[in-house]
Amino acid sequence: MAWSTLTPPGVSMELHVSNREKLLKSIRQHLTDSSRPLHGVVLLQGGDEQTRYCTDHIELFRQESYFAYLFGVIEPGFYGAIDIASGKSVLFAPRLPADYAVWLGEIKPLSYFQEKYTVSMVYYTDEIVVALHDIYKGSGKPLLYLLHGLNTDSNNFSKPAEFKGIEKFETDLTTLHPILTECRVAKSEHELALIQFANDISSEAHVEVMRKIRPGMKEYQLESIFLHHTYMYGGCRHCSYTCICATGENSAVLHYGHAAAPNDRTLEDGDMALFDMGAEYHFYGSDITCSFPVNGKFTSDQSLIYNAVLNAHNAVISAMKPGISWVDMHKLAEKIILESLNKEDIIVGNVDEMMAERLGAVFMPHGLGHLLGIDTHDPGGFPKGMERPKEPGLRSLRTVRVLQEKMVITVEPGCYFIDALLVPAMENAKTSKFFNGEVIDRFKKFGGVRIESDVLVTTNGSKNMTNCPREVSEIEAVMAGASWPLKKT
Amino acid sequence: MAWSTLTPPGVSMELHVSNREKLLKSIRQHLTDSSRPLHGVVLLQGGDEQTRYCTDHIELFRQESYFAYLFGVIEPGFYGAIDIASGKSVLFAPRLPADYAVWLGEIKPLSYFQEKYTVSMVYYTDEIVVALHDIYKGSGKPLLYLLHGLNTDSNNFSKPAEFKGIEKFETDLTTLHPILTECRVAKSEHELALIQFANDISSEAHVEVMRKIRPGMKEYQLESIFLHHTYMYGGCRHCSYTCICATGENSAVLHYGHAAAPNDRTLEDGDMALFDMGAEYHFYGSDITCSFPVNGKFTSDQSLIYNAVLNAHNAVISAMKPGISWVDMHKLAEKIILESLNKEDIIVGNVDEMMAERLGAVFMPHGLGHLLGIDTHDPGGFPKGMERPKEPGLRSLRTVRVLQEKMVITVEPGCYFIDALLVPAMENAKTSKFFNGEVIDRFKKFGGVRIESDVLVTTNGSKNMTNCPREVSEIEAVMAGASWPLKKT
Repeated sequence: MAWSTLTPPGVSMELHVSNREKLLKSIRQHLTDSSRPLHGVVLLQGGDEQTRYCTDHIELFRQESYFAYLFGVIEPGFYGAIDIASGKSVLFAPRLPADYAVWLGEIKPLSYFQEKYTVSMVYYTDEIVVALHDIYKGSGKPLLYLLHGLNTDSNNFSKPAEFKGIEKFETDLTTLHPILTECRVAKSEHELALIQFANDISSEAHVEVMRKIRPGMKEYQLESIFLHHTYMYGGCRHCSYTCICATGENSAVLHYGHAAAPNDRTLEDGDMALFDMGAEYHFYGSDITCSFPVNGKFTSDQSLIYNAVLNAHNAVISAMKPGISWVDMHKLAEKIILESLNKEDIIVGNVDEMMAERLGAVFMPHGLGHLLGIDTHDPGGFPKGMERPKEPGLRSLRTVRVLQEKMVITVEPGCYFIDALLVPAMENAKTSKFFNGEVIDRFKKFGGVRIESDVLVTTNGSKNMTNCPREVSEIEAVMAGASWPLKKT
Repeated sequence: MAWSTLTPPGVSMELHVSNREKLLKSIRQHLTDSSRPLHGVVLLQGGDEQTRYCTDHIELFRQESYFAYLFGVIEPGFYGAIDIASGKSVLFAPRLPADYAVWLGEIKPLSYFQEKYTVSMVYYTDEIVVALHDIYKGSGKPLLYLLHGLNTDSNNFSKPAEFKGIEKFETDLTTLHPILTECRVAKSEHELALIQFANDISSEAHVEVMRKIRPGMKEYQLESIFLHHTYMYGGCRHCSYTCICATGENSAVLHYGHAAAPNDRTLEDGDMALFDMGAEYHFYGSDITCSFPVNGKFTSDQSLIYNAVLNAHNAVISAMKPGISWVDMHKLAEKIILESLNKEDIIVGNVDEMMAERLGAVFMPHGLGHLLGIDTHDPGGFPKGMERPKEPGLRSLRTVRVLQEKMVITVEPGCYFIDALLVPAMENAKTSKFFNGEVIDRFKKFGGVRIESDVLVTTNGSKNMTNCPREVSEIEAVMAGASWPLKKT
């Protein structure tokens, strides 16, 4: 682990300036369209540090994502405002006690934050009532647009800003959330550069893991190698999500790696590995899955399932372009996987009939992919009016949108042998006929394969931002020591 | 980073069985002493997983410490009970939905947890009301002893268990907390073995950092090396606290490394480094600080300050034994540091007079050390009746207790040049005379030195559980490539 071709890029606050401009434009348009005055102040509350239970153990702080999008502030305890009339941006910084300088570091003047975050003004949080009154040029009580809305992945609501004296303002809880969420859907060039870097360093770290993996190691050792590579060479202190380092049967557990299933299995010769890991750089994430045999050589069964998934992955990326429905992409992936399994007699019968019975969801119970950005599951998947499908597989989709230019979306087809799904489907009167029980038995302990790339929707097609070995031959070459990308011969 | 002499040890649940027995003995004794019946059930609620703000991003779960102490459960969503009359222990596990098997892993039967955690019985959390009534053999409403009490480091209160139907019980909120907290103060052999392993792997990781450090690196790269070493070779997924990787002037910021001061400075030739990092293994932690020159060679000024702190560190460890007051140890450390600074003409005058004016707190504003265990700042520092001192330095002590056998306490003297403290002290009429302004000026950009070891109080003295190079010659040899421990010549 002696090198990387990468260095962490500088981050320009123009990124957040342009995010704010985008919001201003959208909200002004919305107000104009609904014949409302162009007055009011957008106000968001940043995150606060959290302690662990009753102790003074402080968890490493990570900014709330909407706040990060607009202001890029890494420090806890801030508020941020944007005046809709003037376009001015304001940060409110916590007033720190004098002994902060002894324990936690230099107390920065307000001008420091003004310059660092390129905002119009900075005040202390205890000045928020007066400052917001000063900024607001409309009549009557100043109107605050606060963030309140449903996250369609968690079913939690975002927390609107709260502060002492808020009763001196009118508040609007419905306008901001859908507009700001929609701003986050299409990525700017600034944002794409960060997502690209997160992809570059994470792709490189996945290759490092492929090179270091050996039977006899513990799953968490590969997690450690990934984390180290992305932090050491990429400056990524946070990951987009807890690493999933699943081997053997664990690779059929979609969200393995959490505290109750903590990547602690010992790798065995003959195992498949499914490693779903992505680093985050200046808030923007990556989300990458590589599947490969622990010993570096695919068996015929392993390459069979692997290639079924790879074909789906590649076909989706080739088909992606603006105007294409994500639901159709999900079905395309399902169909290709079913066709491959059919061809190999793992399942038998007519694939269209299988599709009608939602057989794809037995092998791929999760959605094909999700928007990616400051959140791993970036919001905006179900704008108002879009309904979540009810059918197996499709109901797990995190978005059912039509693709638009500058969306970044994960393409992550998978094929898993999960008893909890296979057994009922093999017993079900409508679907039992599709299964070749004898061959299925051979895969009972197989686990699963997932291949996941982060894909940008371009004007005419798509661009894969992830760069990992994907072909069986590429994986085997890299695991045998070849450089990546492979040298042309 | 190709090796370690260590492998993660197995963990016996006897550890937690004996922790429960200790609590039972203590609480029965307390009830007997206060002429109360030996009835009632101790009930604790374990921690739950937390999502990041409104998203579905799940933070890596770490069990609540009191619950971890008694039950050792790594999974979220549990409750645990101990019946005082019978001594029986009961876990309540969450009833998981069927699709948990698809997304998060095998749904374990209750018998799995009974065996894994060596408890008398396991029920589902939704059976808690009935099960607790069955267990309780006293008359009337069953009495629950719940955990409610002040953490004297955070000033937060622990959260008593809550569940639907709790109104069907009598509850006692005052008895349990001080008794259980006191149980945690003296460590068992099982606990000491884990703290020793956390120390061993962390000490080795500190050595690895010393070997790899070079001017031009970023502070966080050393954090990454530490984290990787302790996870890769020690299986330590959690650290005891966020790593403090402070170099140059940052080494005078006592709790550097948090999100607003994120270990992102570039190391310069001539800097001192102050690295305060410790891993945690099966809940039990370590807390170790090493200070050394980034380029591997101490200047005379650097060794002057370093040796002042090292002399204090060593003198305290030599003086420690049961019956010794921790306040006296703090003063001993202060005095040795002041004497050293006096000898080198950094400060001038009578050291006893300096001590009376609390001059030590200008150079060492924090306390000498704290109890260490499942929490980095382990509770029990201020049992009922012990008051926090008001004087500078002493008021930062996390305990003022008299040492007892089997306590593990950090010994972490430091000497820092902090403008926020030096400037007022040099202007103060009572203390200005002590400072040699010209020499102090030389140290304005020095930062600080801290040396921290985890020390067990033994029957007749103490044992240092940390094993890092400490002498200037040792550090320079290891940084030049010598093996550690140094080979005898």
